[in-house]
Amino acid sequence: MLYLVCYDVENTKIRTKVAKALEKLGLCRIQYSVFIGLLSEAERQALETKVRLLLEKDPNYSFVVVPLHNDMVESITEISKHPLDWEYLNGTKLCMVI
Amino acid sequence: MLYLVCYDVENTKIRTKVAKALEKLGLCRIQYSVFIGLLSEAERQALETKVRLLLEKDPNYSFVVVPLHNDMVESITEISKHPLDWEYLNGTKLCMVI
Repeated sequence: MLYLVCYDVENTKIRTKVAKALEKLGLCRIQYSVFIGLLSEAERQALETKVRLLLEKDPNYSFVVVPLHNDMVESITEISKHPLDWEYLNGTKLCMVI
Repeated sequence: MLYLVCYDVENTKIRTKVAKALEKLGLCRIQYSVFIGLLSEAERQALETKVRLLLEKDPNYSFVVVPLHNDMVESITEISKHPLDWEYLNGTKLCMVI
């Protein structure tokens, strides 16, 4: 399933660790504190467990994970200098290595 | 329809104007650059037109509007010091003035 993940984390070190956890799972950074990417149910659960541990020591945090169904992706509006490749993000565009 | 709106806007003055436009429409700021709230189709279109004009002069921007269907809201995960009232946000909780 495709997910959008956004967060506010006050402590810079913890914020960096959260971003690294998302990058490690292959999510794509679309804004400073917003990532999008495909996660399996197990990956999502592992991410949430990890983030709960990381955020325990943060004075003020908000971490939100939004599932994006395929039929919704078409109704997303993006106004951007560098538009995203939504087909790549939701896995419908594949790369062939020859 | 309930929408999640997130943005990165480089110029501070323009960023403030974008946030004010979202607040004026009654959207709730859930993170520094993430808002959630109900918008009619006309409001969404007017917002996008306004934001396109505002962002014309910004050197680097990304503005994303994600529709959140009711059945999806239940699958959103929130890890937060100050959890949101999702029933209030999606309009299923009403206030009675007596």
